[in-house]
Amino acid sequence: MRPVRYFDDYVVGDRFVTDSVTVTEGMILQFGRGFDTQLFHTNVDAATDSNFGGLIGSGLQTLNLSFALFFRMELVQPVALGSPGLDNVRWVQPLRPDDTIHVVCEVREVRPSRSKPDRGMIIMRHDTFRHDETRIMTFDCMHLLRRRQDA
Amino acid sequence: MRPVRYFDDYVVGDRFVTDSVTVTEGMILQFGRGFDTQLFHTNVDAATDSNFGGLIGSGLQTLNLSFALFFRMELVQPVALGSPGLDNVRWVQPLRPDDTIHVVCEVREVRPSRSKPDRGMIIMRHDTFRHDETRIMTFDCMHLLRRRQDA
Repeated sequence: MRPVRYFDDYVVGDRFVTDSVTVTEGMILQFGRGFDTQLFHTNVDAATDSNFGGLIGSGLQTLNLSFALFFRMELVQPVALGSPGLDNVRWVQPLRPDDTIHVVCEVREVRPSRSKPDRGMIIMRHDTFRHDETRIMTFDCMHLLRRRQDA
Repeated sequence: MRPVRYFDDYVVGDRFVTDSVTVTEGMILQFGRGFDTQLFHTNVDAATDSNFGGLIGSGLQTLNLSFALFFRMELVQPVALGSPGLDNVRWVQPLRPDDTIHVVCEVREVRPSRSKPDRGMIIMRHDTFRHDETRIMTFDCMHLLRRRQDA
């Protein structure tokens, strides 16, 4: 486990790279049937006839997996106070069976809170890459983090 | 099942209201342990001591459930060509055990494609409400949809 990083320890340009995960056809079908029942996520034959030419994972599944990889780094957990939201969520390329993906996270902004001196917000760009280094997804996440008590 | 609505059938201001789903403590813990391992999503005691004062669902879980409710309406599936992305994703209030949520979807923009005459994009605001009508989440989703062949 990494040493605890408080809000004060982040600077613009800091980069963190997650582990990777390989996505199976079964994972794609299971997620689609539960959360995103468009045919190109839930039915291999229909997906082959669709504009995507084959089964693709829901964009929501790519987002879930990207967050799971991020949180498994145990980077923000000890000081995280939640997230106000996301901006600029873009699905650039579809997620396909047997893709292995990882995420590169880069700090874009650091903003101390004006009203609450115990916290600050970092805005982090999360770029999700396939094994061949093609970027398949990108999003900016606001992370509220505790400040060092002596800051 | 509703009649098929093509891109051409949407106008700004169209509203669609989903069914609702009730979220259990078990669902929150299961999702947190899989995808968002912050303690206020995965451990009831630690969550009680956190800034949230109790277990809350991952914002990602609220997003997943909101999309699941949307897709269960079977509104866009027959003509949907995927989504380029989301904007203005905001978690306004936490999701808590035993909350029952539903989503109100409102068309904000309709944009015929300039390069591909067979499709257009609608931008839909999705607002997720708790049973007491408190809004807990909001996001704008781009939906690429087929046009009517005779349009």
